Amino acid sequence: MTPSIKLNSGYEMPQVGFGLWKVDNAIASDVVYNAIKAGYRLFDGACDYGNEVECGQGVARAIKEGIVKREDLFIVSKLWNTFHDAERVEPVVKKQLADWGVDYFDLYLIHFPIALEYVDPSVRYPPGWHNDEAGTIIKPSKATIQETWTALEDLVAKGLTKSIGVSNFQSQLLYDLLRYAKIRPATLQIEHHPYLVQQELLNLAKHEGIAVTAYSSFGPASFQEFNMKHAAKLAPLLEDATIKSIADKYGKSASQVLLRWSTQRGLAIIPKSARQETQISNLQSTDFDLSEEDIATISGFDKGIRFNQPSNYFPTELLWYFG
Amino acid sequence: MTPSIKLNSGYEMPQVGFGLWKVDNAIASDVVYNAIKAGYRLFDGACDYGNEVECGQGVARAIKEGIVKREDLFIVSKLWNTFHDAERVEPVVKKQLADWGVDYFDLYLIHFPIALEYVDPSVRYPPGWHNDEAGTIIKPSKATIQETWTALEDLVAKGLTKSIGVSNFQSQLLYDLLRYAKIRPATLQIEHHPYLVQQELLNLAKHEGIAVTAYSSFGPASFQEFNMKHAAKLAPLLEDATIKSIADKYGKSASQVLLRWSTQRGLAIIPKSARQETQISNLQSTDFDLSEEDIATISGFDKGIRFNQPSNYFPTELLWYFG
Repeated sequence: MTPSIKLNSGYEMPQVGFGLWKVDNAIASDVVYNAIKAGYRLFDGACDYGNEVECGQGVARAIKEGIVKREDLFIVSKLWNTFHDAERVEPVVKKQLADWGVDYFDLYLIHFPIALEYVDPSVRYPPGWHNDEAGTIIKPSKATIQETWTALEDLVAKGLTKSIGVSNFQSQLLYDLLRYAKIRPATLQIEHHPYLVQQELLNLAKHEGIAVTAYSSFGPASFQEFNMKHAAKLAPLLEDATIKSIADKYGKSASQVLLRWSTQRGLAIIPKSARQETQISNLQSTDFDLSEEDIATISGFDKGIRFNQPSNYFPTELLWYFG
Repeated sequence: MTPSIKLNSGYEMPQVGFGLWKVDNAIASDVVYNAIKAGYRLFDGACDYGNEVECGQGVARAIKEGIVKREDLFIVSKLWNTFHDAERVEPVVKKQLADWGVDYFDLYLIHFPIALEYVDPSVRYPPGWHNDEAGTIIKPSKATIQETWTALEDLVAKGLTKSIGVSNFQSQLLYDLLRYAKIRPATLQIEHHPYLVQQELLNLAKHEGIAVTAYSSFGPASFQEFNMKHAAKLAPLLEDATIKSIADKYGKSASQVLLRWSTQRGLAIIPKSARQETQISNLQSTDFDLSEEDIATISGFDKGIRFNQPSNYFPTELLWYFG
């Protein structure tokens, strides 16, 4: 049984979910359908992943077959950067709900604290970061985070999402948001693995009653395909001798140890896998406890290395968003 | 001759200034007076340093003796955390101006992006971080950065400061501020040394036309008295063999090399010293050029290690402000 986390919005969120980033469109419907059959109830999607239609098809099939009801699921989506202007938020959320084929999201997040100029979905969807093939970055918009957050608060009032939250926010911006938020963020989703522990940000979230969801729990493994210099230089965590010896001690896999390190410290996780065996292994990663010593050993891997920042994808223009 | 930096506000700022943090009240007046005689024109003060009255006395003496005029000086001060509420800004700036004995600041910064509850100056001044001897941290206030920044913009309109800026801001919060700022920050003041290069934040500032002032240019040396575990573990930069060999090559001191590494990359610096010889050495650190290779070597020290964050001073409650 997957444990759940009680959000400050009053809703329960499964602590182990399924992440939809980089799930190919061709298989997304089947992946979601099979993950539901494997026992997953939380699906973490986003406009930017470009697969919300297919993910919704997998959900529809599972519901149609009576495997789950809508209310058994916890569907997460995210606002892309080009929809930060207040008047753009509700229309795109309605489009995303239509793509998923559902009436409401359980949780809707600001994907990045980076407001970019509006791109009409009829022109390009998802809009991504670039305006053309030459790689011209979309210009900043004038929307403040307060403006965008207020628009997300309106979504809750309109029943389009149960809870709202943020992703990829640093502590200072989160602290500022807490000054003006009428609805506090239910969750903060961040890159989090032994090479990027971010203990101070976790402390802030805990202090403020905000649940934290970790993405890229296996560290560099999530980013190998991008040929990042960071990722190439670091030992893969799943093959690290220390991680493997801890795994052996508990009779678990290295991936289960990395996931349990997060959940035992109170975080939610959203691993993905197209293989059913791995899906089940990830989902069943909460049925053992690491010792405090082993948790400390894994936390000691911290190098403050962040993979998912724009400067790792783009040569120059965005070399600064997360500095 | 000290080079200057043209700010986006139109004013010229000396690239080498004198930092007033940790200058004891007993000697502050003499230190400032002597630094003016040594050639310093920029003084970087703050409410929180608790020595603005004495620093102002040093300025008054130098002006009275005809060494400089007010308009020759560039006086910087900072808004403390407990004065972020809009209606508190102008009164405390007027108090700080009175303490300095001047009619205007050249530059006034938000010291930290941390809004705390108001403490009346008649109760305690400077207010610091704590409400009592037991170490109770002052509670957060509801002031947003936008509210505080708007109040700083009003100071410019009223002639109380020529330029305004921010200090200790991360890139995300700075990016958000740039969405709503009617007057853009002229400067960003940050901790910056070879162990904390923050290249992405520097790129953002450059891209946005914001001058950057480095504090704690010598790294851990500035923080030894706080008994930080970080600082104790790191090799002192001023005694590092690589830094010293570069210094020998140019016939300069290690401190001059560290300062030149910053100024040659476009940053302003604000070292301090009570010794006249060191004051002059620091001020004369711009009369040679490091090779690109030596600059890259020094930049290669980067470990992303920040000393000046509240969690390094306080045990738990503020363990999160800069995560």
